[in-house]
Amino acid sequence: MKKAISSAVIRRLPKYLRYLTALHEQGEERISSQKLSVITGFTASQIRQDLNHFGGFGQQGYGYNVQSLREQIIHIIGLDRPHRVAIAGAGHLGVALANADIFNENRFHLEALFDIRPECIGKQIAGAEVYSVSEMETVLREKQIEILTITTPRDVAQELADRAVEAGVRGIWNYAQTDLHLPHGIVLENVYLNESLFTLVYYMGNWKDYKGFEE
Amino acid sequence: MKKAISSAVIRRLPKYLRYLTALHEQGEERISSQKLSVITGFTASQIRQDLNHFGGFGQQGYGYNVQSLREQIIHIIGLDRPHRVAIAGAGHLGVALANADIFNENRFHLEALFDIRPECIGKQIAGAEVYSVSEMETVLREKQIEILTITTPRDVAQELADRAVEAGVRGIWNYAQTDLHLPHGIVLENVYLNESLFTLVYYMGNWKDYKGFEE
Repeated sequence: MKKAISSAVIRRLPKYLRYLTALHEQGEERISSQKLSVITGFTASQIRQDLNHFGGFGQQGYGYNVQSLREQIIHIIGLDRPHRVAIAGAGHLGVALANADIFNENRFHLEALFDIRPECIGKQIAGAEVYSVSEMETVLREKQIEILTITTPRDVAQELADRAVEAGVRGIWNYAQTDLHLPHGIVLENVYLNESLFTLVYYMGNWKDYKGFEE
Repeated sequence: MKKAISSAVIRRLPKYLRYLTALHEQGEERISSQKLSVITGFTASQIRQDLNHFGGFGQQGYGYNVQSLREQIIHIIGLDRPHRVAIAGAGHLGVALANADIFNENRFHLEALFDIRPECIGKQIAGAEVYSVSEMETVLREKQIEILTITTPRDVAQELADRAVEAGVRGIWNYAQTDLHLPHGIVLENVYLNESLFTLVYYMGNWKDYKGFEE
């Protein structure tokens, strides 16, 4: 069995994809790891090391083919397969996510939203229906939802996650600002928006450390 | 002049703060770097190295005092000072952020929102008024806003950022999914929510790499 790849490497994949997509849109056909380093802020050796985890795609003296590397990263992440998603909580955040480009680009399919407020139920949001939370398991099973996005208040997040996992969901994208306990085999991704704001505040007070990109 | 601290270290500070706050709420008074390592998923040596950048707060054989380390990190990030924030875009995402715990906890003060839609202008959201974008510079100056959160469509984000900087804003918290070009001295923090979803999808297809925490 191969050694597990560190989350730092994995979290850089979407960033490579973003930069490669921009290069591709600008009509760039190839890029050296040095140039990629200037754009991304990652060192050239880190880029080579990162990509070597997945097979290494560069050629000595040529660099990387932008479109081919982009497609490889899409494949590595798993964005070349469809993913069926639902959102628990049709409040402002749920509706914002439903309407965001996230679910329009790539192969994510928003299939349903869930809420407890009677005035929301039955509405269409970004092409998906809002169902009562009481029907959640049935809808998740019928629509074979893989990923549940949780945008509810934190006190109901664990219960909703448990019920979703019971109904076949394998990934929880959690905005409820609380850590969830999930069974083996289920992937949890917590989004803590305040951490990004805190980083901004740190740099505002410590300009010397600011480089304008992530490492 | 001290060497710049890498963004990887800086981005771990809010995570330390989150774990230390949880420990503090559980009544824990001290913690070893080993135990902190188990909770956070960072290695004990990484934790020591990270904190040494800011002075090092542990004592040999004692570990860290939870409340004191927590207060130090709050101070290092700059969360012990007030921060005056506004939000451009009073759509679903803007309203979700305005109502999120982010601006209620800590010392962030949401002072204003801006929108172009006449039906939004004059409304109160989370205790702050929605102003017309045409008044933005005046309001930003009068209220001495430091941070502008941009939740507008991407095609107006650069113009709004430029105008905000002109009016004294020093940090841009950007949800507009587009990279902005800002003058020297201005801090930009881009939020790409899809990157977190992509990480979730990667782990769903590569369970062997999943550890349930970040490194």
